[in-house]
Amino acid sequence: MKRVKMIVAYEGTNYCGFQIQPNAITIEEVLNKKLFELLNEPIKVIGASRTDSGVHAMGNVAVFDTNTRIPGEKIAFALNRILPEDIRIQGSCEVAPDFHPRFCNTRKTYEYKIVNRTFPIPTLRNIAHFEHYPLDIKRMQEAASYLVGEHDFRSFATAKLQVESTVREIYSLTVEEVGDMIVIRVIGNGFLYNMVRIIAGTLMEIGMKRLDPDILPAMIKGCDRSLAGPTAPAKGLTLVSIEYV
Amino acid sequence: MKRVKMIVAYEGTNYCGFQIQPNAITIEEVLNKKLFELLNEPIKVIGASRTDSGVHAMGNVAVFDTNTRIPGEKIAFALNRILPEDIRIQGSCEVAPDFHPRFCNTRKTYEYKIVNRTFPIPTLRNIAHFEHYPLDIKRMQEAASYLVGEHDFRSFATAKLQVESTVREIYSLTVEEVGDMIVIRVIGNGFLYNMVRIIAGTLMEIGMKRLDPDILPAMIKGCDRSLAGPTAPAKGLTLVSIEYV
Repeated sequence: MKRVKMIVAYEGTNYCGFQIQPNAITIEEVLNKKLFELLNEPIKVIGASRTDSGVHAMGNVAVFDTNTRIPGEKIAFALNRILPEDIRIQGSCEVAPDFHPRFCNTRKTYEYKIVNRTFPIPTLRNIAHFEHYPLDIKRMQEAASYLVGEHDFRSFATAKLQVESTVREIYSLTVEEVGDMIVIRVIGNGFLYNMVRIIAGTLMEIGMKRLDPDILPAMIKGCDRSLAGPTAPAKGLTLVSIEYV
Repeated sequence: MKRVKMIVAYEGTNYCGFQIQPNAITIEEVLNKKLFELLNEPIKVIGASRTDSGVHAMGNVAVFDTNTRIPGEKIAFALNRILPEDIRIQGSCEVAPDFHPRFCNTRKTYEYKIVNRTFPIPTLRNIAHFEHYPLDIKRMQEAASYLVGEHDFRSFATAKLQVESTVREIYSLTVEEVGDMIVIRVIGNGFLYNMVRIIAGTLMEIGMKRLDPDILPAMIKGCDRSLAGPTAPAKGLTLVSIEYV
């Protein structure tokens, strides 16, 4: 028996998120099914991040235990041959049997992409949010700077039963023009539910001049979801990478 | 009666090319149908470029005649509201009644995109060709330089009944790494059938070291399709723009 770790990339458009649920196709379910087909034994993957419906990933992580004699590094190639083309393993290797992708210190990178122009671009319709109203990047960058560091991000989390702490650290938060898109890139030690999408929604409100950048400190301090901007649509969000530190 | 010119962008994945044909959905057919819906009069668009099945466009051009009182510039916004989301007009305006999008001198720009890495990227699967074998960009650039200028490009055209001349001029042909992709960008006064895809296929053979860059002059001179490389897959190709000069 060995434990295999996989880097999982997918376009989330056609899936109801990562985590298995009844009556809906999810990434986890497809991985389990295709690994069973490949290895001929029942497989139950453990995912690092339960991305929401419509959210994409370049670097989600999943592990599973197997008795196969296929070397860990070969799993990626073999599995890609039978996966649907909107899911592609980006690498695989054997890890320690006690490695758990969620109960570890990590450094996660997310990107939120916005097509900001008069007309939408058809080829980007599923992987970026479209906003025709001009966004002022300088204002968004100024607002972003207040969010960097260790804060209680309760204002930036969808109100759910939160048993755990809502304190997180953002290491870096940048807003840049990349080709036809504005890309918000955030790196942190963990993110609350919907946190990146609420940060993106808030930065867009500020870019549209509906809010001022210097409202951010009060927004953080208030610890109240209603103080922050709307949750930006799922399709703009990509989980870029998870590093284990 | 007035003539309206539209810039048409689309992801070609779900269409059998631009031109109307029986038993298959095409861009031209959708434009005619949606313009009829919008303007309440039968419309027949004339397209500038009959892109092939699976080929994309950011800047194809189509014109049509109409009696509508909607100003030319407003057509783009009104039409986008009822088009499927993989087709988006990028602008519209009134033009002279004798303007014909095909019988004019033009400067066309195409891009051919290649994802060149070990594993495919799911979000790029429909808009770029995937090649895992490493491509040597320097070799591709050297080969590209031979194609610039006025040449008989018969070796780079799918053998069809060619009544017209096969001489064309390429103004610029570049090969660059852009993010996760290699982008071949070509600007010319016109292109023969499949010419950009055959150039891309030939440059890839050279990038893989199956052919040498300095074979290009003989390949051009031979005027024989069998001398050039394979036709690269349609999904990597995008018609970027058509300028009327």
